[in-house]
Amino acid sequence: MPSCVWHLALCLAAVAGNSWAAIREGQAERNCSAVPPYLPSTVVNTAQRLKALREAIVSLEINAYIIPGTDAHLSEYIAPRDARMAFMSGFTGSAGTAVVTPNKAVLWTDSRYWVQAERQMDCNWMLEKDVSISSVADWLLSEVPEGGMIGFDPFLFSIETQRGYSINLTPGNRILKSIPENLVDKVWKDRAPILPDNLTALPDRVVERTWQRRVEDIRYQMEENPYQPTALLLSALDETAWLFNLRGNDIPYNPFFYSYTLLTMDEIWLFVHTERVTDEMRVYLNSSCNQTLCVQLNPYDSVRASLKEYVAKSGIKVWIGTEYTNYALYELITPQDKLLTSAYSPVLITKAVKDETEQRILRDAHVRDAVAVMQLLMWLEKAVPKGQETELTAAHFVNECRRKQKDNRGQSFETISASGPNAALAHYGPTDETSRKLTVDEMYLVDSGGQYLDGTTDITRTVHWGMPTAMQREAFTRVLMGNIEISRTIFPSGTRGINMEMLGRRALWEVGLNYGHGTGHGIGNYFGVHEWPVGFQGNNLPFIAGMFTSIEPGYYKENDFGIRIEDIAVTVPAHTKYGNNYLTFETVSLVPYDRKLIDTSLLSPQQLQWLNNYYETIRKVMGPELERQGLKEEQEWMHKNTEPFQSSGSSSVISSFSVLLASLAGMLLQYAM
Amino acid sequence: MPSCVWHLALCLAAVAGNSWAAIREGQAERNCSAVPPYLPSTVVNTAQRLKALREAIVSLEINAYIIPGTDAHLSEYIAPRDARMAFMSGFTGSAGTAVVTPNKAVLWTDSRYWVQAERQMDCNWMLEKDVSISSVADWLLSEVPEGGMIGFDPFLFSIETQRGYSINLTPGNRILKSIPENLVDKVWKDRAPILPDNLTALPDRVVERTWQRRVEDIRYQMEENPYQPTALLLSALDETAWLFNLRGNDIPYNPFFYSYTLLTMDEIWLFVHTERVTDEMRVYLNSSCNQTLCVQLNPYDSVRASLKEYVAKSGIKVWIGTEYTNYALYELITPQDKLLTSAYSPVLITKAVKDETEQRILRDAHVRDAVAVMQLLMWLEKAVPKGQETELTAAHFVNECRRKQKDNRGQSFETISASGPNAALAHYGPTDETSRKLTVDEMYLVDSGGQYLDGTTDITRTVHWGMPTAMQREAFTRVLMGNIEISRTIFPSGTRGINMEMLGRRALWEVGLNYGHGTGHGIGNYFGVHEWPVGFQGNNLPFIAGMFTSIEPGYYKENDFGIRIEDIAVTVPAHTKYGNNYLTFETVSLVPYDRKLIDTSLLSPQQLQWLNNYYETIRKVMGPELERQGLKEEQEWMHKNTEPFQSSGSSSVISSFSVLLASLAGMLLQYAM
Repeated sequence: MPSCVWHLALCLAAVAGNSWAAIREGQAERNCSAVPPYLPSTVVNTAQRLKALREAIVSLEINAYIIPGTDAHLSEYIAPRDARMAFMSGFTGSAGTAVVTPNKAVLWTDSRYWVQAERQMDCNWMLEKDVSISSVADWLLSEVPEGGMIGFDPFLFSIETQRGYSINLTPGNRILKSIPENLVDKVWKDRAPILPDNLTALPDRVVERTWQRRVEDIRYQMEENPYQPTALLLSALDETAWLFNLRGNDIPYNPFFYSYTLLTMDEIWLFVHTERVTDEMRVYLNSSCNQTLCVQLNPYDSVRASLKEYVAKSGIKVWIGTEYTNYALYELITPQDKLLTSAYSPVLITKAVKDETEQRILRDAHVRDAVAVMQLLMWLEKAVPKGQETELTAAHFVNECRRKQKDNRGQSFETISASGPNAALAHYGPTDETSRKLTVDEMYLVDSGGQYLDGTTDITRTVHWGMPTAMQREAFTRVLMGNIEISRTIFPSGTRGINMEMLGRRALWEVGLNYGHGTGHGIGNYFGVHEWPVGFQGNNLPFIAGMFTSIEPGYYKENDFGIRIEDIAVTVPAHTKYGNNYLTFETVSLVPYDRKLIDTSLLSPQQLQWLNNYYETIRKVMGPELERQGLKEEQEWMHKNTEPFQSSGSSSVISSFSVLLASLAGMLLQYAM
Repeated sequence: MPSCVWHLALCLAAVAGNSWAAIREGQAERNCSAVPPYLPSTVVNTAQRLKALREAIVSLEINAYIIPGTDAHLSEYIAPRDARMAFMSGFTGSAGTAVVTPNKAVLWTDSRYWVQAERQMDCNWMLEKDVSISSVADWLLSEVPEGGMIGFDPFLFSIETQRGYSINLTPGNRILKSIPENLVDKVWKDRAPILPDNLTALPDRVVERTWQRRVEDIRYQMEENPYQPTALLLSALDETAWLFNLRGNDIPYNPFFYSYTLLTMDEIWLFVHTERVTDEMRVYLNSSCNQTLCVQLNPYDSVRASLKEYVAKSGIKVWIGTEYTNYALYELITPQDKLLTSAYSPVLITKAVKDETEQRILRDAHVRDAVAVMQLLMWLEKAVPKGQETELTAAHFVNECRRKQKDNRGQSFETISASGPNAALAHYGPTDETSRKLTVDEMYLVDSGGQYLDGTTDITRTVHWGMPTAMQREAFTRVLMGNIEISRTIFPSGTRGINMEMLGRRALWEVGLNYGHGTGHGIGNYFGVHEWPVGFQGNNLPFIAGMFTSIEPGYYKENDFGIRIEDIAVTVPAHTKYGNNYLTFETVSLVPYDRKLIDTSLLSPQQLQWLNNYYETIRKVMGPELERQGLKEEQEWMHKNTEPFQSSGSSSVISSFSVLLASLAGMLLQYAM
């Protein structure tokens, strides 16, 4: 699944819209200049909630209130109860910022979402299109008088976001006011409640290191750190989940639970909704004591108070990862010499490298996952020509196939099932309105993944059931060449993904093609599908052995078709002629590519060799698994689709050669006779 | 010429020493624990100058004084009169920092220079080996009491350096004191004077845009800048040189003169040593007036006072490039809202793209330069087997060849002429002590360049006059493959060099080899040989059309041999099948590679094709030039060395094919007879 949000500028260049924008007919957009204003049925009436919010604004004597689209853990996906921007404005897109003043309400979102915003917002809201912080700040400078106050919930601001607003507003003498009690929550009557009994421990069979060992490992790193931190504060939801081998289901597609952790050399404070921690879980966490390996449970909402109390002590220093710590906690850690920052916490950095068990079970999850994807591809080959299948039925089919696999815990994101022009929208997901019928005349892209107790998967295949055009074949082959070039490259341990990712684009660049999203993201053992900071982005960690990442080049032709080939690969040691400490990638997604779309004459001998080795691996690993699951037909399908390719270059030489030989032999015989 | 200083960590891994370190026998290092201390003859007695400096330190009531190795323009090369660290300590290496306290004197330098420092410093000086700012600061924290003051010359600190010291020292309550009058200069009696009559204007034939047009262009960019700067401050020496089409000779190998420029929309202030500006130059600069295109000459030393006066006005905003502005000027621009920063000034960014004339004459300079390099290579082929030539005589030969070429203005850096193990030291330059005899048994690397009125050149060739080993041939071929892969790649305009430079390493990585320096640096029209910010480093500008850069992968086998293949290339539009706005490189260095070292069986068909096209270009361009210069023998040498290569793959198929054909034909004939 491509990670647009991490590469917005590029992304916007390539992505013309999303599923909403894809609706060409039918529903209209609002028209606020008509008399009376025209509002489509998709619009939410925000008059009452805005009135209530404005009362809160006025009573606090602030001039404006900023409502971001994220949650207190700066999560990529958020729970419905955190969708405050959507609640206030009606706009449900995944990226945006809202600002409400006593007489105005404005939403900023990027070009992917403009049409959607015009269909979901009523005329109380204005739409602004430049989403940079400086653009929001410019608007605030024009609306808020000098000396005026602009309120924000510091839990919903990253350190960087706060800095961005501050740099733009402070010189103009507007005061940024941190208000830790969220004003939207105060007026949100039917806000979804916290789920009961949410935390579960991972079973022993998927765990190599107990949470106690993990805590000791992290404490060792704190001890070794030259700046001598006395505590580590964990804010990202996957940090606490990883540390304690726990999972939850607060956030769709992400097995997380609301939490913070404050870890010192002597104590462990876990901030969760304590009312939903079962007795069994209390035993697991050893929460009845307060020694060094006892987890003290504190209410989730008390994290700020507890941190404040801890910071007030002398001789302390709190280590935070700046990328995932919200401003509400950051602003408490003063003076500066009580603070130790790194971009990522030692938990995220340790978690980036999978231990032996994690590697083994994550590979296993991909084997079962490949069964589901092969089932889909085989079924579509037969079903599509009958003319009854759609993007939605295909998505449903693959989701169901996954659900049948052992240890499945649902999807890892909403399946992208996209035919023809819909596939040119990188983040498209089908709806009743947009779902296209699948036909032999269009290319089809399916980007899907599963959550399993042992691992998270994410794979994209693009296929054509009829006759692809020459351009489609060329583009597909060049995307495949990009995937292979990254996969087969050998590089020194410690090389950054960003410095290699052009290999994924180079075959496309050669003919003037490109794609507008990132080339890959980390992934792991039952966490979010984008498991940062591993991957090919500029802010990702250098690759060392044992990291899993997606490799997913693509090509998108607007209003026509979209291609993406995505596999998960793990960094493994490479044996080289002269050197040590070199790595390469080993692909763990095990599903063949559409043969019809591959023009082998474009491949180098090395690329062809890689492809044939990969297919051999698929046969070796997936054959027994399909056999075990009693899937005979799928086994045949797999075998047929993993036939080794012949080198088109050498085969043509050989064939012309054999023609010649044959004719010479003929002549010889003639003479001999 | 590789740019180690920009990539120090990597560099240190690969470079075991420099020319000093290469001295294995002969001179000894100092021994300060012997009684009496042993001091080699290379040591400088620093007792008197230290005593004088300490008097100044004590009289200012500071506890320590920092002496960096750079100049007020943060230049890569410095003039002898700016070698303050060398004067004080005796140590003449190009990288280091000295600190003097009332009773201690310490020098920090990196591993390339440790041996040299032990041979040049007397026992008044201690050597420290961790060169990070935090290591120097740690030492200061241990030596200077709380509340103590540490002095520095703000002209010799970059903004970043000052920030580094401040972050480390301020929390410990040590005060960093900016002292704009340099204390070393006060005690340096025989400091070299400023040269007379230094500034010269470039002749019209090498100039497309007069300085007046350049000023107007830069003013236009100031006007267009949304932050509305009222002035632009230029600190780097090549900025002022570029703006006014002037050159000087204050710095060895670099045609620069001491200068600053303060440019507003109405006025132009040029800060130079006014006593050496001739009447003719005053006319050229239109310095008798004060309108918008009149250059007002101010004394070089008055820049701080003038800037202070300007900043005191209201409604002003000064634009600086933070990479090259010293702290002495930066600290004056307060409050912050009078400051506009970008990493590079608009002058450096404009200068990075060469205009049509600059492109044409820079290519021309490379044609003449290639003649000199071919003369060297041809001469060495004949001379080396006779056993009389050394690294020094070879360097002398190529320098003399260059001097005979039209418009030559000397070398662009000290020639790196290195045989056998000496070539494994990336920055080696031969001295009387280290110079090796050239023999047919060793590889030889020559990295050299010239200054010409129309352009600066920089080229490296590696040759072998006898029988290279298989490993030498493989390594050379893989370095060449790296050079070719970068040169032939097609990429979207705006791609960063750092994201493509792995193409220069990939063929080496494949067999576990690598190199420890950067892959290329900008270069231009009669400026410094490293013309930043163009190139393949992380802080370089994205490539657009019209930029010149070196491409210089290498491989170094310690104590054995060194390989580097360096060419200058220009970014040019690439015509692609489907897209627009793609670029590729066109190589403008025109000297063939050593055929003996190329194993064509390793090359891809595309690489072989590129090589043959390149050789065809050399023949087409250099043939007429050698003819014009009447160099018949060189012409033959060039022709012989640019024979097209046969594809080893296809040729072997063809040849076995023809053997078969021949034998079949023989059989046929037999039967026929």
